[in-house]
Amino acid sequence: MPQLYVPILLGTGREGRQSEKVARFVLAQAKAAGLDAELFDVRDYGSAVTIPSWEKNPCAKQWQTAVKQADALIMVIPEYNHSFPGEFKILLDSLFKEYVKKPVGLCAVSSGAFGGARMAEQLMPVFNYLQMVWVGPPVYFPKIKELFDEDGNIKDDSFLEKLKKLFADLRWYSAKLK
Amino acid sequence: MPQLYVPILLGTGREGRQSEKVARFVLAQAKAAGLDAELFDVRDYGSAVTIPSWEKNPCAKQWQTAVKQADALIMVIPEYNHSFPGEFKILLDSLFKEYVKKPVGLCAVSSGAFGGARMAEQLMPVFNYLQMVWVGPPVYFPKIKELFDEDGNIKDDSFLEKLKKLFADLRWYSAKLK
Amino acid sequence: MPQLYVPILLGTGREGRQSEKVARFVLAQAKAAGLDAELFDVRDYGSAVTIPSWEKNPCAKQWQTAVKQADALIMVIPEYNHSFPGEFKILLDSLFKEYVKKPVGLCAVSSGAFGGARMAEQLMPVFNYLQMVWVGPPVYFPKIKELFDEDGNIKDDSFLEKLKKLFADLRWYSAKLK
Amino acid sequence: MPQLYVPILLGTGREGRQSEKVARFVLAQAKAAGLDAELFDVRDYGSAVTIPSWEKNPCAKQWQTAVKQADALIMVIPEYNHSFPGEFKILLDSLFKEYVKKPVGLCAVSSGAFGGARMAEQLMPVFNYLQMVWVGPPVYFPKIKELFDEDGNIKDDSFLEKLKKLFADLRWYSAKLK
Repeated sequence: MPQLYVPILLGTGREGRQSEKVARFVLAQAKAAGLDAELFDVRDYGSAVTIPSWEKNPCAKQWQTAVKQADALIMVIPEYNHSFPGEFKILLDSLFKEYVKKPVGLCAVSSGAFGGARMAEQLMPVFNYLQMVWVGPPVYFPKIKELFDEDGNIKDDSFLEKLKKLFADLRWYSAKLK
Repeated sequence: MPQLYVPILLGTGREGRQSEKVARFVLAQAKAAGLDAELFDVRDYGSAVTIPSWEKNPCAKQWQTAVKQADALIMVIPEYNHSFPGEFKILLDSLFKEYVKKPVGLCAVSSGAFGGARMAEQLMPVFNYLQMVWVGPPVYFPKIKELFDEDGNIKDDSFLEKLKKLFADLRWYSAKLK
Repeated sequence: MPQLYVPILLGTGREGRQSEKVARFVLAQAKAAGLDAELFDVRDYGSAVTIPSWEKNPCAKQWQTAVKQADALIMVIPEYNHSFPGEFKILLDSLFKEYVKKPVGLCAVSSGAFGGARMAEQLMPVFNYLQMVWVGPPVYFPKIKELFDEDGNIKDDSFLEKLKKLFADLRWYSAKLK
Repeated sequence: MPQLYVPILLGTGREGRQSEKVARFVLAQAKAAGLDAELFDVRDYGSAVTIPSWEKNPCAKQWQTAVKQADALIMVIPEYNHSFPGEFKILLDSLFKEYVKKPVGLCAVSSGAFGGARMAEQLMPVFNYLQMVWVGPPVYFPKIKELFDEDGNIKDDSFLEKLKKLFADLRWYSAKLK
């Protein structure tokens, strides 16, 4: 039986993470099964992925205050590999009850033709679980590299109308859900 | 019309990000529409969310080498808010062509009863897009806080069999796809 | 080059379907490329999958009236192969604007341990697109074959509390969104 | 407390369905909680949604034979409300072990600009669970009503190249996984 090289990635850097137990268990079993297994830890990839526990993290406080006071939220998120950027998820996950019943609108961005549509689908279960109220449809910004001129002005005026509708819908839900 | 406080979150910290143009456009339109809008940037939340562009990032090199050489991959990922941790996505997104045709198995972890099943569903389109070959089903580790004893030994021996099956399937796909 | 047998499935039975053009185009190209391709059509699989266009379909009227008048909706849906039953989607798709701003609660059912959790995640983008207001979390009914006694009484009283919470939340959203 | 009219939809027509117990339980509890609840059953919406159990269903035999013999599969599926048509899911669900390790390609269709991209994302977990091997990316057919001329000829020749790539990839996986 040829030896297979199998990297095992531990995909959380959170303090108190329980998944480390699983990773060590899988590593031991993989070696026992004759695999050339090696453990990789997201914590080892620079400070970018060392996540303090939220209770002690001062950098999440400002976001917490903003969400608490918010009448509604707008998220501007690009699509990377059919989903959202990790740095967005880290900040999102720093809060929980603050999101409850906040209306949320999405501006989805992509360099391709689909405007971040797949990322939007992935966010919906996350936002629903956090009990935000989805105010759709998203405003999709496709082919983003061609959409703005050098001064940052949008070349397609139809986005003005799309945003007006989003703002009006956020107002409506915010007023109703108070 | 009452003034609504609407935080606008720019959800990417990547160098050369295009979404900043969208965020600034949305901010200006929101203010023009009478909203009390304020821009938040994931870059402002500590080094945890300042992402260098991948080309210049030394910390991604080791992962790149491992994935290039890998016969198969195993990911150990917990579910946070129905999806994966952001720090995992940051590292995952640092590579692209290295993943092509690599068989991948998932060990999904949760403190609840569903063992990370929802996170697994979200990873599938991402892995498919990266052209990894999904080797399923995932091994689900539910109620993780009760699953291991104090010495890190798993209390439920059925997981030994589940891992054996996963390893065998990874071997099969690795051999076939070479 | 060996000849490959490749069934091509046309996956819609709707009147006026446009996908038939694509299926015929793909079939012709596949044959031209030397594949032993054969077209299969969901319409050929019995009346179960011959779908009249909704405008002319009398059987959708009763559901339409109910949804129009509804203050809230409850869906009881099992999970088949990580998603919802097709017969549910057919009926759901028969309406559109009637769903707008209706609060919707989900009772998810499965024979396994996860209670239909993956099906629930798939429904969220669909319900969001239809502009229903998601009232969560779903009530998950796992291991359904063991959950009721022979007289149809539930064996686990915790579901009474879960339903009470769902009903209260539906009431709250229904009152607010009127 | 105002009486709320709440339709409860039983979303499966399968013989031996267990979800009916849940629907009856929810109905009784909803009435006990003072809701004006009414049960709707997908079985009542015409033969389109009365699903025989698969064991006894003759109409699934031909599809079963085809999938068993298939070297690869191509699915041509439009997007309805961000997901797939129900009639497709009914036929798909009629088989199980026949799909294992079959390479599958997707031609996704939509009348809008996104070419069925969201439907494709929803199919991935379903296909993965059925242990088909995803051969991507899908060929997306957006703006379908404008894509073919009156004789059924495609107006955009780039689709010829996209299909050639899909066929080649299906050949590659089919050869490898034998």
